[in-house]
Amino acid sequence: MITVGIFGATGYAGYELLRILARHPQATLGFASSETYAGQRYSDVYPCAFDDTLVAPGDAPLDGVDVVFLCTPHAASAPFAVRALEAGCKCVDLSADFRLRDLATYETWYGAHAAPQLLDEAVYGLTEIYRQEVAGARLVANPGCYPTGPLLALYPFLRQGLLTSPRVIIDAKSGVSGAGAKPSPTTHFVAVNENLSAYNVGRKHRHVPEIDQELSRFGGGQDVQVVFVPHLLPVTRGILSSIYVSLDPGWDQEALLDLWGETYADSPFVRVRPAGSLPTLAHVAGTNYCFLGLAPTGIDGDWVIVTALDNLVKGASGQAVQNMNVMCGWDETAGLLP
Amino acid sequence: MITVGIFGATGYAGYELLRILARHPQATLGFASSETYAGQRYSDVYPCAFDDTLVAPGDAPLDGVDVVFLCTPHAASAPFAVRALEAGCKCVDLSADFRLRDLATYETWYGAHAAPQLLDEAVYGLTEIYRQEVAGARLVANPGCYPTGPLLALYPFLRQGLLTSPRVIIDAKSGVSGAGAKPSPTTHFVAVNENLSAYNVGRKHRHVPEIDQELSRFGGGQDVQVVFVPHLLPVTRGILSSIYVSLDPGWDQEALLDLWGETYADSPFVRVRPAGSLPTLAHVAGTNYCFLGLAPTGIDGDWVIVTALDNLVKGASGQAVQNMNVMCGWDETAGLLP
Amino acid sequence: MITVGIFGATGYAGYELLRILARHPQATLGFASSETYAGQRYSDVYPCAFDDTLVAPGDAPLDGVDVVFLCTPHAASAPFAVRALEAGCKCVDLSADFRLRDLATYETWYGAHAAPQLLDEAVYGLTEIYRQEVAGARLVANPGCYPTGPLLALYPFLRQGLLTSPRVIIDAKSGVSGAGAKPSPTTHFVAVNENLSAYNVGRKHRHVPEIDQELSRFGGGQDVQVVFVPHLLPVTRGILSSIYVSLDPGWDQEALLDLWGETYADSPFVRVRPAGSLPTLAHVAGTNYCFLGLAPTGIDGDWVIVTALDNLVKGASGQAVQNMNVMCGWDETAGLLP
Amino acid sequence: MITVGIFGATGYAGYELLRILARHPQATLGFASSETYAGQRYSDVYPCAFDDTLVAPGDAPLDGVDVVFLCTPHAASAPFAVRALEAGCKCVDLSADFRLRDLATYETWYGAHAAPQLLDEAVYGLTEIYRQEVAGARLVANPGCYPTGPLLALYPFLRQGLLTSPRVIIDAKSGVSGAGAKPSPTTHFVAVNENLSAYNVGRKHRHVPEIDQELSRFGGGQDVQVVFVPHLLPVTRGILSSIYVSLDPGWDQEALLDLWGETYADSPFVRVRPAGSLPTLAHVAGTNYCFLGLAPTGIDGDWVIVTALDNLVKGASGQAVQNMNVMCGWDETAGLLP
Repeated sequence: MITVGIFGATGYAGYELLRILARHPQATLGFASSETYAGQRYSDVYPCAFDDTLVAPGDAPLDGVDVVFLCTPHAASAPFAVRALEAGCKCVDLSADFRLRDLATYETWYGAHAAPQLLDEAVYGLTEIYRQEVAGARLVANPGCYPTGPLLALYPFLRQGLLTSPRVIIDAKSGVSGAGAKPSPTTHFVAVNENLSAYNVGRKHRHVPEIDQELSRFGGGQDVQVVFVPHLLPVTRGILSSIYVSLDPGWDQEALLDLWGETYADSPFVRVRPAGSLPTLAHVAGTNYCFLGLAPTGIDGDWVIVTALDNLVKGASGQAVQNMNVMCGWDETAGLLP
Repeated sequence: MITVGIFGATGYAGYELLRILARHPQATLGFASSETYAGQRYSDVYPCAFDDTLVAPGDAPLDGVDVVFLCTPHAASAPFAVRALEAGCKCVDLSADFRLRDLATYETWYGAHAAPQLLDEAVYGLTEIYRQEVAGARLVANPGCYPTGPLLALYPFLRQGLLTSPRVIIDAKSGVSGAGAKPSPTTHFVAVNENLSAYNVGRKHRHVPEIDQELSRFGGGQDVQVVFVPHLLPVTRGILSSIYVSLDPGWDQEALLDLWGETYADSPFVRVRPAGSLPTLAHVAGTNYCFLGLAPTGIDGDWVIVTALDNLVKGASGQAVQNMNVMCGWDETAGLLP
Repeated sequence: MITVGIFGATGYAGYELLRILARHPQATLGFASSETYAGQRYSDVYPCAFDDTLVAPGDAPLDGVDVVFLCTPHAASAPFAVRALEAGCKCVDLSADFRLRDLATYETWYGAHAAPQLLDEAVYGLTEIYRQEVAGARLVANPGCYPTGPLLALYPFLRQGLLTSPRVIIDAKSGVSGAGAKPSPTTHFVAVNENLSAYNVGRKHRHVPEIDQELSRFGGGQDVQVVFVPHLLPVTRGILSSIYVSLDPGWDQEALLDLWGETYADSPFVRVRPAGSLPTLAHVAGTNYCFLGLAPTGIDGDWVIVTALDNLVKGASGQAVQNMNVMCGWDETAGLLP
Repeated sequence: MITVGIFGATGYAGYELLRILARHPQATLGFASSETYAGQRYSDVYPCAFDDTLVAPGDAPLDGVDVVFLCTPHAASAPFAVRALEAGCKCVDLSADFRLRDLATYETWYGAHAAPQLLDEAVYGLTEIYRQEVAGARLVANPGCYPTGPLLALYPFLRQGLLTSPRVIIDAKSGVSGAGAKPSPTTHFVAVNENLSAYNVGRKHRHVPEIDQELSRFGGGQDVQVVFVPHLLPVTRGILSSIYVSLDPGWDQEALLDLWGETYADSPFVRVRPAGSLPTLAHVAGTNYCFLGLAPTGIDGDWVIVTALDNLVKGASGQAVQNMNVMCGWDETAGLLP
């Protein structure tokens, strides 16, 4: 049994972590911190059944804590990571602070970095792809919610060099929890309900450089041009991405499905839908699964890939716990089934 | 054809007024003002098809305007009412500023009043009940969204002295637009979606003194004790109120339905459901109707009354236009059908 | 580790049972049966990650099964209960077949009973109240989704004789999963979305005799008159009930909250909200908790009680597993936290 | 003032027609027919404020009726069209029966055609493109809900020969009313709510041949390959389509927006969003507008076009009334503003 701490516990990812950890057989909560709500009971801040008292970040007792989760915003996370590592904790950061390997790229999208010296050491925590590196890591950068599905889907196709056109169109639809808990005109119930809107169209979303970085690594540097169009969906949880690609026409649907199946044979959280069926948000709601499926478009060699995951679980806190499980040498599914 | 002006045009009630006025055969828009968005096009502030340019309230041209609608918050409305009346306009105020006849009661619930000298003159604009007074009014206080349905339902029962217990329980459920457009933690999509919550329980909601005032007038001062429990419903529009009352057991269902039918025979916007059927939000969405229905509870003399209306139409901007129609001597339904 | 079987596994309660059992530390699935989908994989019937193959009810292997859950409709359940008990299994029935102790009352509401000889033996599985009886039972009748919350709230008040009026008004609002998975005009998305409707008003809902029976037992036969008005809410899960009661004015809010607190001190799934706060659906979504709260109405001695639970968990499959845990002598919370 | 009749009045399109016609200044309702509900009042079938009595289709009085709307399903519509034309009525068919000019294509997708002799005469009622033909038509085939937006968006680009790749990817998201009022497992509230799913992926949806036919006409036969991926969205109304195209890189954003502006300068229901802004469902809900917008994807010459409309209005009954207005020589917007 180990002890974990959470910085930034009152956001959606923080709450989801509490929920998952509450049934984790090998981890117990050491502290949950909040800048804003320090001193209050959790259930007085967030309607739920957790009654832990929130501590101020400065009072968080790192002694005796084995793993620290950072649910703090980008830029705020890096200093906590430094502090956690200095205290001898392993650290999983759910912000963007350690996802981009290139400092200049980070600074272009997010501004100054508070701990660039840790960039080389941080491991990108897409568990299924970097399981080995995660196992030996002190600091894991948990992937963004949007990149996780498309990256898992495209990984084997890029590694096999199947792309016949560099263009990869990702038409993504996300639930509102992806926008965070801070109230704004765009997340007001009346603005979202019965609505659908595209935003940050083209290459303006901060997850684009993360997708670029990983696709480039998967493809060994071959040219990939990502078109990323996110949409805000009137649901609380879930991301469904419809991905349009042109692949080597020598590969038929069964061959492509088999390639996914083989790639993820030992990855319990990746599920491949059989031909004729595609993932939906209902398949994954509340779970750590990423579902994959594909269908012919009617144009030879062109496919639509559909990926689905719960942005708060596999897209955030579930994958963070999955990474903790790997870092601690436990069964990857501990606390995460079903 | 008359010209109307709107102060506070970018809130939900303001938008709904624009929508209704756009198809009104006898009214045209003179100005739409906004403190925050002056100088912008309406469609750049609010996703819709209206392209009117918003003016600053101070620049609103009252000359040549016949009727002014105040969609401004309470306390802010009263000074605009003074200004509109001084300019010779008729005025319909959608805020609470002129709903309560008793200054002390107003001050208890809302604080200082900026124009108490107008309280006596203002007519409470529950059109079906005060049609005569509205017809001759310069200043109409448009009723609150919650009171409208229960007041219309209870009016004939109180006037006939049918209540056998003073206790009237109003279990009300409102869509989120009733909470206004200002972002807050309680109106965040994630907080409302898949949720239901009671709030301002007991006699804490500001619509309670308004309900008290009118029920007392209807009943000629007989004792009525209102229990009002509003709930926030995960829909954009609509209020459904389930009202529990004890009535003279000599009146059966048909007699009660007939009493409603006779009372509102000349009121095109009040619709009575036949026995065995009750109003739902679907009956009234987007319309100016208030639907009434009732059913036996299984206890002799006890009834559950159900009222439904669209809080933005009959509960706000539709009733405001209905009042304008009456003030101008037009067909009450002008611009408001279906 | 025991083995469990599920009859009627493809309804909402059946799916929820699979979800809960998948993380139960002491139970494993022996079979899941379906009349309609026998031979198919679960995930091909219901979008999820379970791939168990469904068996025909007639082929369900009761040998080696320790506990059987019946998620079949009323009337269909009773014969399965007979078969399960004859095979030596313990049985938790989620239908209404064994909830009503009086055969005539059952027949009035549901028609002929297929196994009236079991009515005396069956234990009403409101775990917190009948824990002792459940512990020794072979056959447990899992309570209906609507009764569970109000019964838990009213139990100590009735036992203490606090009611000063026999009238108990339950204004209940339920998510659509309570209506079952069978498509109908009333559960069509377009009919429910952005709508709210009362149904089976008065004393017409089949859960009324169940509430009557239990309140009568709690109160030792004192007169209680229940007014039950259910509403269909545009959410998937959850029931929130606003209950209007008159209680002995000698009991203030803290005394009433304390009475709840003492009554349920050893009941991990009943949570009492502190004064000034009331339960919402968000508190209980996806959990086995029943939250209780109350507030003054402004009328002396009159209170509004609010109860919230997830109709598929504490209102069905969660309470069924809770009962299994008690029947097997395990920790009541096994598989049910958080 | 003319008289109109509606066959199939109790579906969603029929209801929407009633709603629009109720405020049309030049049309009055002659009859509304329903096979299933003949003899009942409208408001007893569908929760609303219309109390017209439904007639059996065989009893529909075509004498004295000027325009007939067919809201009946495909295959059922054609015989009504024959009957309406024989009675001297103009006819707008909202089904697919007269949309496809090629009989063989119709039969491939829909089966036998009951009135192939009318195919040549029928005019495809995409009003903005075929206004002239509609003006002189006896029989108008109202377009499908999905094709309308993409066709209006692509029309000027194809006519100008701007496509540099034949591939046009339409990632479309539709509200549930598009699936019709008939209950089914896929339209159950619980199946749709909090979900998103792709369906009829590739070229399997019946609107594909309609899109093909029109794009081919617009482009003068140039090769266009449509990839059409519809998704079912948890909203009642609205279709938002994100369309991925490669255009002549010589045209920048302003030039493309100008081309739309010029093309639709005299089309009051087509609205072009300025650069930096894209249509959302909120822009069009309840209106007859089709909003167009586009944004660069980050790849030279590649664009994402976004179109939004209300599937029940511009995608069905609104456009049908717009066509009636043109057929009758009235202002195209009569009854359709705002």
